[in-house]
Amino acid sequence: MEPNPLIPFLKPQGVAIVGASKDPTKLGYGLARNLTLCGYPGAIHFVNPKGGQLFNREIYPSLNAVPDPVDLAVLLTPPAFVPQTLQECGERGIRAAIIASGGFKETGPEGAALEAECVNVARQYGIRLIGPNCIGTIDTHVPLDTTFLQPPGPSRGEVAFISHSGAICAAVIDWVRGQGIGLSALVSLGNQADVTEADMLQLVAEDPHTSVLTLYIEGISSGRRFLDAARRVVRQKPVLALKVGRFESGQKAAASHTGALAGSESAVDAAFAQAGVIRANTTEELFQWARALAWSPLPGGRNAAVLTNAGGPGVTAADALELNGLRLAHLLPETEQALKTVLPPAASVHNPVDMLASASPDHYAQCLQILLADPGVDQVMVITPPPPMYSTGGIAKALIPIIQRTEKPVIIALMGDRLIQEAVEHFRAARIPEYRFPEWAASAMGVLSQRADFLAARSEILPRPLGCDESKARQAVANENQIGGLSQETAVKLFEAYGIPVLKLELAETAEQAVEIGRRSGFPVVLKVASPDITHKSDVGGVLLNLKDEQAVYDGFQKVILNARNGLPQAAIQGVHVQRMLPAGQETIVGMVRDPQFGAMVMFGSGGVEVEGLKDVAFALAPLTGLDLERMLEKTWAGRKLRGFRHLPPADREAVCDVINRLAHLAIDFPELAEIEINPLRVLEAGQGAYAIDVRGRISR
Amino acid sequence: MEPNPLIPFLKPQGVAIVGASKDPTKLGYGLARNLTLCGYPGAIHFVNPKGGQLFNREIYPSLNAVPDPVDLAVLLTPPAFVPQTLQECGERGIRAAIIASGGFKETGPEGAALEAECVNVARQYGIRLIGPNCIGTIDTHVPLDTTFLQPPGPSRGEVAFISHSGAICAAVIDWVRGQGIGLSALVSLGNQADVTEADMLQLVAEDPHTSVLTLYIEGISSGRRFLDAARRVVRQKPVLALKVGRFESGQKAAASHTGALAGSESAVDAAFAQAGVIRANTTEELFQWARALAWSPLPGGRNAAVLTNAGGPGVTAADALELNGLRLAHLLPETEQALKTVLPPAASVHNPVDMLASASPDHYAQCLQILLADPGVDQVMVITPPPPMYSTGGIAKALIPIIQRTEKPVIIALMGDRLIQEAVEHFRAARIPEYRFPEWAASAMGVLSQRADFLAARSEILPRPLGCDESKARQAVANENQIGGLSQETAVKLFEAYGIPVLKLELAETAEQAVEIGRRSGFPVVLKVASPDITHKSDVGGVLLNLKDEQAVYDGFQKVILNARNGLPQAAIQGVHVQRMLPAGQETIVGMVRDPQFGAMVMFGSGGVEVEGLKDVAFALAPLTGLDLERMLEKTWAGRKLRGFRHLPPADREAVCDVINRLAHLAIDFPELAEIEINPLRVLEAGQGAYAIDVRGRISR
Repeated sequence: MEPNPLIPFLKPQGVAIVGASKDPTKLGYGLARNLTLCGYPGAIHFVNPKGGQLFNREIYPSLNAVPDPVDLAVLLTPPAFVPQTLQECGERGIRAAIIASGGFKETGPEGAALEAECVNVARQYGIRLIGPNCIGTIDTHVPLDTTFLQPPGPSRGEVAFISHSGAICAAVIDWVRGQGIGLSALVSLGNQADVTEADMLQLVAEDPHTSVLTLYIEGISSGRRFLDAARRVVRQKPVLALKVGRFESGQKAAASHTGALAGSESAVDAAFAQAGVIRANTTEELFQWARALAWSPLPGGRNAAVLTNAGGPGVTAADALELNGLRLAHLLPETEQALKTVLPPAASVHNPVDMLASASPDHYAQCLQILLADPGVDQVMVITPPPPMYSTGGIAKALIPIIQRTEKPVIIALMGDRLIQEAVEHFRAARIPEYRFPEWAASAMGVLSQRADFLAARSEILPRPLGCDESKARQAVANENQIGGLSQETAVKLFEAYGIPVLKLELAETAEQAVEIGRRSGFPVVLKVASPDITHKSDVGGVLLNLKDEQAVYDGFQKVILNARNGLPQAAIQGVHVQRMLPAGQETIVGMVRDPQFGAMVMFGSGGVEVEGLKDVAFALAPLTGLDLERMLEKTWAGRKLRGFRHLPPADREAVCDVINRLAHLAIDFPELAEIEINPLRVLEAGQGAYAIDVRGRISR
Repeated sequence: MEPNPLIPFLKPQGVAIVGASKDPTKLGYGLARNLTLCGYPGAIHFVNPKGGQLFNREIYPSLNAVPDPVDLAVLLTPPAFVPQTLQECGERGIRAAIIASGGFKETGPEGAALEAECVNVARQYGIRLIGPNCIGTIDTHVPLDTTFLQPPGPSRGEVAFISHSGAICAAVIDWVRGQGIGLSALVSLGNQADVTEADMLQLVAEDPHTSVLTLYIEGISSGRRFLDAARRVVRQKPVLALKVGRFESGQKAAASHTGALAGSESAVDAAFAQAGVIRANTTEELFQWARALAWSPLPGGRNAAVLTNAGGPGVTAADALELNGLRLAHLLPETEQALKTVLPPAASVHNPVDMLASASPDHYAQCLQILLADPGVDQVMVITPPPPMYSTGGIAKALIPIIQRTEKPVIIALMGDRLIQEAVEHFRAARIPEYRFPEWAASAMGVLSQRADFLAARSEILPRPLGCDESKARQAVANENQIGGLSQETAVKLFEAYGIPVLKLELAETAEQAVEIGRRSGFPVVLKVASPDITHKSDVGGVLLNLKDEQAVYDGFQKVILNARNGLPQAAIQGVHVQRMLPAGQETIVGMVRDPQFGAMVMFGSGGVEVEGLKDVAFALAPLTGLDLERMLEKTWAGRKLRGFRHLPPADREAVCDVINRLAHLAIDFPELAEIEINPLRVLEAGQGAYAIDVRGRISR
């Protein structure tokens, strides 16, 4: 395997700063200062046509004067000079450049043209670009700092941060230091003229010092590349992402319920869920969760014990655990007995275990050991508000060795500020996740469980269903001469070609034909006289329901024709429409749309006319795994009730999954299908199948 | 008006500490220390049978030796001695006592008996009690500190905190100090043997130094008292509450969908919403929101401008604003023009306004002034990640005078830690709300808007609807001899008495009677032959639909009888059932249950058999205001679609509101009605009314 060509962005042999400045009020000064002071062990070169000396180093007048080694250039020149400088990089043999300068696409069409010119030059020389309009990269273990940010930089740690926003980088570096969280690497991507979050995901995941990756994303440039990269990385290391820009997605015109409901956020949500990326809602969540994933083992299950010295925080913790999908563990009788021997009689040995305000460091330590020994306890939250009698530092010191020995997660809630500082420092030094409130601790425990569940539930892309006749479907699509709405006829042909059961109305001109259609569609069937002149068919006896076998259909055909002739002698009669008569079932919706970033996306949920009102729908990107299907069904009431509900018998879940999977394959095979929607898909009782009753679609070439 | 008898708990003339101790490892020492060191200006008395000296004061051997003034006793004696000590309080004329000691109800039945004994003694002498098992009270403005917590105590401020948990108090005092939030008063309620959160709400609201009240509640002892107190207080001062103990509510048996869905949390949610109490989900929200309410003016609307020096945080802010129910304000052309004259050309003068990283303190100040001058801007978020060139302290100093002059809220997001400390301190000193992230700032702005909306939307309890015949209903209930399920007959009588339209099936023995029933119920009607012997009534022509007038009903009666006689000559025929034939409509559910704490509660939502699956329901406590009704309708899809949706015509919203209000009055008037549920309530097109199709109920005496 070839080495990743992006390596020089984080681990270069030598760095040239083009635009290094002796003026301390200039960003070019900050850049030179940070690279020098961070302790970068490789070669440092400053370039500025003005020449001179800076930080005891010569400033070269141009890039071609820079000696070896140099494999990364950081450009902080006026934007107009950047294409020229890139050319010099190419000529000097540099294949990685960070354009820190602003003044490109973000400023309008002129800037965009300049940016395109940069990309052209870079392509010509095989140079990979980060930026423009970014603040560069940091690797705390090399160490490397190519930013111009105010010091101090981040402390060394295990969490990598990849960001579309440079300002967020500055804020995060400063904030996580205060939180005791160290970074391994930081990448500011800026305008992403070339290198995107998908490229960086892969590179950073290869870094041995990084154990958790965090992303701040404003928009995903290539959904499928991101999805592929994330899928590969997430199996090895957890990825957390904060995706902003929700408010920009807005509303758009759509031909179907599916299209109307499928905002770009649905696709992002689906992509994250399917790739195993954990979606944070705020910057705080991003890093508070990363702390737990970086420092804590993963739990074997969702049963949590709470150890507290006060009832109130225990109640808060129990609420928060439930909210985060965890359960209060039922302690074994011997666990409760052991706790009793340690604790005063008024203490509560039921989970949450309340040791009372008199709890000493020794109480904390003994009780934690007892709880960890209970096989029904998968993880423990330890809560310490400022105790009236002991220092929290002493409690921390008593707990740390136990936590370091166990393979179960122990998450700390230290409630307060000044009175708990000593404990905070001990826990941080020992790399044990601590939070200010039980709510935060519980959310971290929820994330650890989510990660454990993801790793446990390996699920492969489902095989292509049998009986998908692509050439037959291709013919149907080719014959469709409309662009826009898909004709009912074509839709039926497509479905038949891909094995999606569809309820058709077929014309029989003779009794024999009617019998043949009945045999094909399955009994019972409905017969309706086919005549453009008869509006109220049942008034003339032109409709027969529930015909259960061939004989009944044969006789029925004659009867319907006779009735119609008698009822309306002047009417033109073409024959009889035959349609399978379905029993009642559960009415669902299954749809497919194409997201501009992520491509084919399927939807499942509660059908009918009120789809957009109820919003009981879930999305997944095609192709699907078994788990993806399961998730769609579990997420919606429509899916959950397929198991049966009150008087509703269990319905054919397998048939629903099969229809969704077939639709997903149809979507993958035919990019010209813009939207397809089955509403309703009637799901019969278990084993009886699911049938498309009404279909609409849109084609675009 | 008599002075509030609880005043001595926060503003006593003299305090006696019973159980004051010279041993620094005892809580009784901490108590004496805190009261002495806090600077309490009243008389301080220590009581301990051991006598001696403490903090330069005599320790009295008993309460009756304590000189005047003394109107508050704090008891920290072993629990067994507390009743005796209370008696001594009574004899000494003390009418307010805090029982800090534990060992009562929280430890089991024996402790509960001891607690009851304390209450008895207190009642005998007219003593009001806080506790037992609490940590006392603090008033930072008196100042008074009757707790034994480790110093330092809270700094002086405007936020009062009332808590069921003592440990949370200790944590909160420590944590809010670190957040720069000062407290006015703090009350730890413990077991609430006497004084509850409802009593304290009233007392603390009267405190002139308190501008915001915060509550930590584990359970509400008397829902109606709380609701009344909260309603009174909230008009004057904002109340924020964190209610925990969700996980304890669990599931219970219920006779109706309404009962099954109405967990105790629904009642708490309804109570908070109806009283205007703002519900926080975490301790952090409680105080971060209190900070904004204490320090910021209220906005005139929900249009927000964002002022930032970087795009990324601007996007985050826009997302967070939308999430919190705010809108990005559309800036006037003259506002954008004015911004252009101040900012560099590459800056974005559209909202969010991005001044770029080069923004100086002066840029911040000028742009904020321009934004505040725009009449379409109701509030502003100012964002500052660590800027590469300027100190955030300088930015703070430039902004503060402008913020202090404006009547619009300006909320600050200072992103970082060490690099923004200087600004944090300036803003806190100036009492301007600042947060670490745009997400927090936006949630605070959402809460300010919520408060402003609440104060603007005054809504009175709806008048008793006309035509509620209580005596007729009472007779129906009295005649109901079942306990348990309410008979259909009684339910119909109750509804008729309270003017709730109900679809009845009435027996006519003659054609004249049938016409009379039709006239009463309204046309069209359905006729069905009434005979226990005829199962398939339509097979014998025993059903006639859609009879539109009196003549049709008269003729129809004869025809139905004749058909039945011809069809089944041996059948016993009692007459004909007449029922109004309703057009199709929207099917909703309206229910009523009785919450153990809050009493009568009504529910509205999507009807049918899947009520519990869809969970599209909303609750409100009776009696209702117009706003309460509006909230229930807006909160549910069932309610929103009454306005019409796609092919669904607008339905009779007024009729729905009327039915809910009538049911609420029925619930108030008849406490013996445990549950009533209308499912479905069919809502016809606007102006056509709403009809109870099926009713069930439960009675308990």
